[in-house]
Amino acid sequence: MDAIQNYIDHNKKRFLEELLELLRIPSVSARPEHKEDMHEAAKWIQRNMIIAGVDKAEIYETDGHPVVYGEKIIDDSKPTILVYGHYDVQPAEPLELWDSPPFEPVIKETRLHPEGAIFARGSADDKGQFFMHVKAFEAMNATNQLPCNVKFMIEGEEEVGSDHLELFCRENAEMLSCDVILISDTSVIANDVPSITTGLRGLSYVEVEVTGPNKDLHSGVYGGGVANPINVLCQMIASLKDDDNRITVDGFYDKVVELDKKEREAVNSAPFDLGEYMDELQVDEVRGETGYTTIERTSTRPTLDVNGMWGGYTGEGAKTVLPSKAYAKISMRLVPNQDPDEITELFTKHFLKIAPKSVKVEVKPHHGGHPVVTPIDTPEYKAAHEAMKRAYGREPIPVRGGGSIPIVALFEEVLNVKTVLMGFGLDSDDIHSPNEHYGLFNFYKGIETIPEYFKNYAELKQG
Amino acid sequence: MDAIQNYIDHNKKRFLEELLELLRIPSVSARPEHKEDMHEAAKWIQRNMIIAGVDKAEIYETDGHPVVYGEKIIDDSKPTILVYGHYDVQPAEPLELWDSPPFEPVIKETRLHPEGAIFARGSADDKGQFFMHVKAFEAMNATNQLPCNVKFMIEGEEEVGSDHLELFCRENAEMLSCDVILISDTSVIANDVPSITTGLRGLSYVEVEVTGPNKDLHSGVYGGGVANPINVLCQMIASLKDDDNRITVDGFYDKVVELDKKEREAVNSAPFDLGEYMDELQVDEVRGETGYTTIERTSTRPTLDVNGMWGGYTGEGAKTVLPSKAYAKISMRLVPNQDPDEITELFTKHFLKIAPKSVKVEVKPHHGGHPVVTPIDTPEYKAAHEAMKRAYGREPIPVRGGGSIPIVALFEEVLNVKTVLMGFGLDSDDIHSPNEHYGLFNFYKGIETIPEYFKNYAELKQG
Repeated sequence: MDAIQNYIDHNKKRFLEELLELLRIPSVSARPEHKEDMHEAAKWIQRNMIIAGVDKAEIYETDGHPVVYGEKIIDDSKPTILVYGHYDVQPAEPLELWDSPPFEPVIKETRLHPEGAIFARGSADDKGQFFMHVKAFEAMNATNQLPCNVKFMIEGEEEVGSDHLELFCRENAEMLSCDVILISDTSVIANDVPSITTGLRGLSYVEVEVTGPNKDLHSGVYGGGVANPINVLCQMIASLKDDDNRITVDGFYDKVVELDKKEREAVNSAPFDLGEYMDELQVDEVRGETGYTTIERTSTRPTLDVNGMWGGYTGEGAKTVLPSKAYAKISMRLVPNQDPDEITELFTKHFLKIAPKSVKVEVKPHHGGHPVVTPIDTPEYKAAHEAMKRAYGREPIPVRGGGSIPIVALFEEVLNVKTVLMGFGLDSDDIHSPNEHYGLFNFYKGIETIPEYFKNYAELKQG
Repeated sequence: MDAIQNYIDHNKKRFLEELLELLRIPSVSARPEHKEDMHEAAKWIQRNMIIAGVDKAEIYETDGHPVVYGEKIIDDSKPTILVYGHYDVQPAEPLELWDSPPFEPVIKETRLHPEGAIFARGSADDKGQFFMHVKAFEAMNATNQLPCNVKFMIEGEEEVGSDHLELFCRENAEMLSCDVILISDTSVIANDVPSITTGLRGLSYVEVEVTGPNKDLHSGVYGGGVANPINVLCQMIASLKDDDNRITVDGFYDKVVELDKKEREAVNSAPFDLGEYMDELQVDEVRGETGYTTIERTSTRPTLDVNGMWGGYTGEGAKTVLPSKAYAKISMRLVPNQDPDEITELFTKHFLKIAPKSVKVEVKPHHGGHPVVTPIDTPEYKAAHEAMKRAYGREPIPVRGGGSIPIVALFEEVLNVKTVLMGFGLDSDDIHSPNEHYGLFNFYKGIETIPEYFKNYAELKQG
């Protein structure tokens, strides 16, 4: 491994410059005006993979944004690692809250990143993380130490639900065949407390529209006489949780697997300081489901959050309007064994049921995703454990993550292999928020850890 | 009166063209970018008053938008009528719901306006209505039949709370001294059912801001663990009304004057067809305070409406953000004897009280206004009654209006005179909404009715 480390050390400046180049491409999948940027990002990745040494790298068009696929097959008898990542990023808005422009990366020190962090949309989620794999591959390949076959599938629709990836996987199942899927799109507990994500919550996401009167009205002339759709939507949303912050959607908890005492103890054994957590977020009190700890609430319990809401007059000053319509985007994080389609259906049914007759309600499903739990007694997981232990000098802790990578459950089904979620970010890296950043320590530590994984996995698989 | 009517008939085309000119000036008081348009509108009105024949017309600067003042004093021993109106208009948004641009007036027929209506922001509220007074004055003056002194006070901040008019009135109380304030900024029941507004609701208007975590968060990583300010704001707003749609703010109803049986019967004697009302608004059910009719709910009962709400991601597609902040604009219509400042204080206290510790809440008061009830046994009111009766050929009905003209109560206090609310619009004219319009019938009927008022009032006052 010394040669690999040596190669990394000699090229680390270039690796970073390349990443900054990629971060300058505003590949926001949710926005039609960035369609061309999506293609530019895909082409950039294709080129970079070729420079890194893959046998082939192709851009696959889909009905949405393209998928970049690359591979290097050294020996059919060796195990194959499929690296999944995504080059699309979340919208950067609200722009005014960024300290520097989201697509003009700058490096600044922070309390948790004394060695500097790259501030840019997508730096941690997921450009900075998938790119570590391309660079780790380059280092292994350049030093003739690639111990496994490698395949890269880097998609452009993760942040908008991976709508076209299922078809791509099904149509290209043979090309994508592998022994393990390796993903870096999650976090470690701290830079000195390595951890591996062993579960992800699923997702159901809907948009609701409530219509009262057929047009905006003067609130003096009509106020008090007809339903105000904002007031009604507030009442409907408020009623979705009870006093214990339990979700009231009929049937919502029916399939939720309750952890037993031992499992709950394990979940709660991860280092966590509630005071620090509250300080970091500047809140005087946490709020969540009665009877569960904050770690449980954010990982092993389902949630319901309004992600956005709007209606009526939202400009400067006062306007006395009784609006015609109110809207909300509502998402639910799901845990094993909740099914996102079923939950979306239960929500829709419930929401229509609780609507008063004085309004009309529409529920439009957005994308969803199945929850995932990864086993820890497999060579795939053990290889990650050993790799992190060597790179960090400390045993990594298995933790259940709260976020969702909706496509993981699908991969496992279509490709019939398990996933390893070996991410390197920090929860405090502000992914999806203004001032997203990714530590230089984390970027380079990832590039160092990945070759260890390849080596361990090859050894464990081949005995 | 024949000469006046003759003059109106001969000039009606020009009157309309002048109004359309005024409607083309986008005098939106709420928006700083329209500051210059406000001045342009003021200057236009000053010029038009001079052409109409006033002795003097001046623009008075204030710390906000200017007031246009004009007068014609024919004889100090004659009664003086002060006409109040406003040249500022509501913001036109949402623009996409207008069938034609809001500041490019067009004339189209509608079901209720078979003779045509002027579609433009401000056509009914209040440019089209105050302008009738300038043209009626012109007709009386040109035919040497002006029976009273007349003063015009046309302000530019009615839609944003008339913040600077109190000082203007107090500083110029002598100049503004009069026997009656005449205002056309309300409506009639129908074009064949004349009515006079004998009351207006007051107004308390606040903006609230709820802050959860100090920044937008990833709803997967943090969801379930911290308060979501949108969910919390929904719960707080929902709790502001009980199951009977009564407002739960502590002390809110303490000073509300309950009408006795006879008064309620009078209020409910106005022609009203609930089926038509529901059809017009395309709602399957009305919604309001239990135990009161729709007419009562919209005129003699106080209300609480969310006029706007926003927070989180409101763009296209799905974003899984747990937002830092949520906002709402909330207004309450008040009835005698509720005091707007006291209600704003009660609301603020209540809203802070119901906030959970997991969020921070700010309440910012916007403008307010006192409710008004005008007596009907005075020469001022009787003159209006007779004028409408002659112009419409039918007795006008006294009705309590649901809207607010916050400044009316102030006038009455500062100038120590009563107000007559003789408006000519229809409730269905979409004031404050897209496609605001004002009937040509109403515009001309107003111009005809006003000279009748002057004549009757002069006779009644001088015995």
